[in-house]
Amino acid sequence: MMRHFDKAFILEVESSFRREFVNCLSGYKSLNLIGTKNSLGVSNLSPFSQVFHIGATPPLVGILFRPHSVERHTLENILETGYFTLNHVTEDFYREAHQSAARYSGSEFDAIGLEEEYLEDFFAPFVAKSRVKVGCRFVESQTLKFNGTELLIGGIEHVWVDEKGLRTDGSLDLNALGTVTVSGLDEYHLGTKLARLSYPKPGKELEEI
Amino acid sequence: MMRHFDKAFILEVESSFRREFVNCLSGYKSLNLIGTKNSLGVSNLSPFSQVFHIGATPPLVGILFRPHSVERHTLENILETGYFTLNHVTEDFYREAHQSAARYSGSEFDAIGLEEEYLEDFFAPFVAKSRVKVGCRFVESQTLKFNGTELLIGGIEHVWVDEKGLRTDGSLDLNALGTVTVSGLDEYHLGTKLARLSYPKPGKELEEI
Repeated sequence: MMRHFDKAFILEVESSFRREFVNCLSGYKSLNLIGTKNSLGVSNLSPFSQVFHIGATPPLVGILFRPHSVERHTLENILETGYFTLNHVTEDFYREAHQSAARYSGSEFDAIGLEEEYLEDFFAPFVAKSRVKVGCRFVESQTLKFNGTELLIGGIEHVWVDEKGLRTDGSLDLNALGTVTVSGLDEYHLGTKLARLSYPKPGKELEEI
Repeated sequence: MMRHFDKAFILEVESSFRREFVNCLSGYKSLNLIGTKNSLGVSNLSPFSQVFHIGATPPLVGILFRPHSVERHTLENILETGYFTLNHVTEDFYREAHQSAARYSGSEFDAIGLEEEYLEDFFAPFVAKSRVKVGCRFVESQTLKFNGTELLIGGIEHVWVDEKGLRTDGSLDLNALGTVTVSGLDEYHLGTKLARLSYPKPGKELEEI
């Protein structure tokens, strides 16, 4: 049975219902811990569900920073130092990832007990336990007119990936890596593969690849 | 065992490897079929993995359109008519969703055999089978400086959701709804819940909610 909600209902309902509801409408989201360090050497770690693919040549990622959110420490550190890391979250430490969103005054790595790691002289800290680690350099940011959301573009400089999740065609097996996905504000999931499908062309049957 | 790839390797490797690899780095992605109709009345349907939450008050979604992609028909229809729909994809029709990315000359609904549906006099077509349907109105678009990616903002006007997936707090149970998530270019997954976690505060133990 389908339930219908119009915009007037959404605007009038209790704000916590609205926040949960609207946040779930896009579907499953990526989950990355972003690691940064400020110019005083204090590291920072924060969970993000708004990291997305921007291009492969050159390799670029985008991050959306909502206005007035606590995640702004991450944005400030990136703008100040030019570097950040993306770290996939697994079942082993999704609770720590969630907890790292709390408002700590010092480093979240220490506060939540996740080990930080420095690789190849890269400035920003990685999460030692993570099985996909991406080192990025600040490229550009842009404030969006409508509501002050900040879109930041990062260039991918380094990738470390657990070889058990790397296929010969370059794709990652996120199930094998144990990468976690998030829905809404606070719900964590593992993925279970249905299929990989061949390139779609009119009149051609899809095949599993 | 971790494997390391630097930017030079990524830029020099075969382009298909690079495309697969970089596309997977952000993690799991949302999957929505976007329904539109042009001013001649021809409907269009296309799968998108770059739909994300922008705000709840007012309720807004964002979509990234890569430059020079086939998905530009969707963008043109939205700019021309002002309306589009988001439709969650389930296990029942993820193959049709994938196939709808093929370059058809007429309506993808007819070509792939998914029934289109019109609700509440909303201009753009919904996917009849979908269990989460969102009717959106064009608000604003912005071309990003670095590579011509278009960021489009839509205002949520209507939502239909299967009541079996709607919780009393407003959140959606995406597992119960059977919503599919995508990784890379062509790999589809179901989600399996690990937990919902309480709001994180320093010094407070997380609880499952």
